[in-house]
Amino acid sequence: MLEKLAAIVGASGILSSAADMAPFVEDWRGLSQGEALCVVLPATPEQAAEVVRLCARTGTPVLPQGGNTSLCGGAVPPSGGPRPVIVGLQRLRRIRAIDPVNDTITVDAGCVLATVQATAAEHGRLYAVSLGAEGSCQVGGTIATNAGGTGVLRYGNTRDNVLGLEVVLPDGTIWDGLTALRKNNTGYDLKHLFIGSEGTLGLITGAVLKLHPLPTARSVAWLSVAEPQAAIEALSLFRASCGSRLSAFEMINDSQAALVVKHVPGRRIPVTGGGWHVLVELADTGNEASLDAAMQAVLEDALDRGLVTDAVVGASEAQREALWAVRHGVSEANKKEGVSLTSDTAVPISAVPAFIASATAAVRAIIPGLTVLVVAHLGDGNVHFIPFFSFAAWEVLAEREAIVQRIRHAVDDAAMALGGTFSAEHGVGATHLPEMARYKPPVELAMMRAIKQAFDPSDLFNSGRLLPLRATAPTSASHS
Amino acid sequence: MLEKLAAIVGASGILSSAADMAPFVEDWRGLSQGEALCVVLPATPEQAAEVVRLCARTGTPVLPQGGNTSLCGGAVPPSGGPRPVIVGLQRLRRIRAIDPVNDTITVDAGCVLATVQATAAEHGRLYAVSLGAEGSCQVGGTIATNAGGTGVLRYGNTRDNVLGLEVVLPDGTIWDGLTALRKNNTGYDLKHLFIGSEGTLGLITGAVLKLHPLPTARSVAWLSVAEPQAAIEALSLFRASCGSRLSAFEMINDSQAALVVKHVPGRRIPVTGGGWHVLVELADTGNEASLDAAMQAVLEDALDRGLVTDAVVGASEAQREALWAVRHGVSEANKKEGVSLTSDTAVPISAVPAFIASATAAVRAIIPGLTVLVVAHLGDGNVHFIPFFSFAAWEVLAEREAIVQRIRHAVDDAAMALGGTFSAEHGVGATHLPEMARYKPPVELAMMRAIKQAFDPSDLFNSGRLLPLRATAPTSASHS
Repeated sequence: MLEKLAAIVGASGILSSAADMAPFVEDWRGLSQGEALCVVLPATPEQAAEVVRLCARTGTPVLPQGGNTSLCGGAVPPSGGPRPVIVGLQRLRRIRAIDPVNDTITVDAGCVLATVQATAAEHGRLYAVSLGAEGSCQVGGTIATNAGGTGVLRYGNTRDNVLGLEVVLPDGTIWDGLTALRKNNTGYDLKHLFIGSEGTLGLITGAVLKLHPLPTARSVAWLSVAEPQAAIEALSLFRASCGSRLSAFEMINDSQAALVVKHVPGRRIPVTGGGWHVLVELADTGNEASLDAAMQAVLEDALDRGLVTDAVVGASEAQREALWAVRHGVSEANKKEGVSLTSDTAVPISAVPAFIASATAAVRAIIPGLTVLVVAHLGDGNVHFIPFFSFAAWEVLAEREAIVQRIRHAVDDAAMALGGTFSAEHGVGATHLPEMARYKPPVELAMMRAIKQAFDPSDLFNSGRLLPLRATAPTSASHS
Repeated sequence: MLEKLAAIVGASGILSSAADMAPFVEDWRGLSQGEALCVVLPATPEQAAEVVRLCARTGTPVLPQGGNTSLCGGAVPPSGGPRPVIVGLQRLRRIRAIDPVNDTITVDAGCVLATVQATAAEHGRLYAVSLGAEGSCQVGGTIATNAGGTGVLRYGNTRDNVLGLEVVLPDGTIWDGLTALRKNNTGYDLKHLFIGSEGTLGLITGAVLKLHPLPTARSVAWLSVAEPQAAIEALSLFRASCGSRLSAFEMINDSQAALVVKHVPGRRIPVTGGGWHVLVELADTGNEASLDAAMQAVLEDALDRGLVTDAVVGASEAQREALWAVRHGVSEANKKEGVSLTSDTAVPISAVPAFIASATAAVRAIIPGLTVLVVAHLGDGNVHFIPFFSFAAWEVLAEREAIVQRIRHAVDDAAMALGGTFSAEHGVGATHLPEMARYKPPVELAMMRAIKQAFDPSDLFNSGRLLPLRATAPTSASHS
């Protein structure tokens, strides 16, 4: 098998020693590890297709892998079971074309996200998908997982920024769906089936992505509010007045803000008193002055209505950066203080206050007085609800595994009861298989399995991910 | 069968006389007609599911029907072959819920589009899908066909305005996918599979739709330009300066403008000289003055660069209406003058000038000097390219059917050569089955057939539509 693969991609395109494969078989947080037959690095879509055809003929599992930055263990092989061929996309990294008039860019799937953003910017355009791992994640991976990030409020998820795809199907056929059209009503939308399928339906090798005008100005404000309900009412005011200029509406609670100030040097909260904090950003193609005026007008309205207890607008780019720095300090602060059981919840925006209240009550019924941190992309209804343990509390926690599981279930149950989801932007991978089994209606799982069966009848592509086993639900790995 | 159906929906919910069924078996333009077993009008999703279960058990074909306003014969039964039960959705017309904070509305599929728009407006919100048939088409039909319309440039196609669906599957199971979330990454996106599937995968009974802030001001201008290339360069200026405020960018040629002036009373072209005409609209949540200023600034830039030969900005709401009235007069004018062989082409925006040039050359190679009218939603790359015959020329046209077919092929071939599509916003239905067979790559048809097989193995749902027969391509009905 290795010889045959080497004949397709060349000797330098195949890695099979344990040392060479190490970065491909362990996830980047070091939480899960598996075994692979080898790692193959095709240099062209045709080579990728030939590799897949060989695997199909020999019944060898295939694991497509981008930048290996999944937060759900979706990009590394399982341990035990037949070892897959990992197909790494890193050699497929050409910018194939950019069309500023059509506002599209055509890229290889292995392009690093930041490279695509930079190329677009050179042409005065924005590729609007932006997330923490953008310096190492690959475009193909962001598409396969329908990645979220900070651009969602204004520009949508990755799904909304893809116009066309090139995919190697499980039988090794290449589907050239690289259309650059904004309107095309000719049959089932196959592109949307592959987006978010996490490598279980095929191997994405290329994509046509939407571009936008590059915003030239922004206005950033920090608001103190008394409760989440006031924050969502302020959000409604901003949406009504500023429309799509509203590009961020992030909320954190006081406990979270305090941790950032405690642990991250130089961070300070500009206005306090309400107990909850909101960062608002407007962005546009005009100038700062008119954006600041729009911001000020809404803030005055919100203050008059008693929705906001205090607010400050960044008066310079340095001040705007300082406001964002508080928000961006969250992960660092929490890692220094203790252990976060972070959720990836989304609920309807109107249900966010009820979700926070009921999830807080539920986890405190398990551990009285438990600290809860809240970090919400409020404009998307996406709440990272964080039951939090200091290192000291964590060390002495009895029956830790069982308690963690109960806490996670309590949070997910609260979300699902309000029409929410247990995975808003991170996907399913391996981590959320138990939740798929627990929460997804059988009719929905049955449809997904029928699609999987239609595209990959031998279950060779990223087997064991995304779809839970048909029998009893797996219960391990639910809090890795 | 009729008795069993009546037992489910009541006697008043079933129509079986030829007279009663007439409006359901003939398409609204009177171009195609078929036969049905009966028309069933369920009053609840549960009744609809029971009807489908009965049909599944008895192997009876099912034809879901909304407002019957398809332009492609997709909503009426074929003539010949087994007669389907038409399931009409008109009794399913409740507004189930509206959530202004989450900016969503939940509706029965049988709600008329205009009713949904009006309900949203009562709450200060916009439902952004808008099209000519909105007074009679139903929301379920717009979803099943992924309808386009005038809101696409700013708000996307119907697909982009749907968050959740409720669907009766071909086996009679109800899938409750009525989620109101903006982020949800938990498996394959089933919603997108049903959107645009034209009733071939299931019966849509309910939907959660996205709402937007209601724009409070607009600015409208008429531009005279020398050629399509200048128009797309002006479009780039508008996009860069105005971003998502740009809500319409429509182009017509001089021949089309002249027909409107000739046939529609009171219409006049405010500025001429260039040979091509562009209507631009900006819309926003602010006031007219700032929008007009933004419009004026871009127009001055465009005049300086020589892209625009002359331009006028509507100074009042009456003047803005008058500018739109010219654009809206197109259909009436063309019907009065002769016969339009209208295409529903889309190409990348950058390819629009080349498409117009090559399609014009191609049709004039068939009929020298043939009049060509152009009506383009230029901002979407959607060009209605109209080879046009006066009534007199049409009457004396020899071998009319064959000539029409050659002309349509010539236009579609020109579009496909530039990465375009033969159906941008109207769908496939019955009319475009030959083009599906002619232009769709076999790998794409194979995937669609695999999906159809997985969801509707007995081929009961809207059989014979959307997907061409596997064998030789049908050649009739290509220019109905």
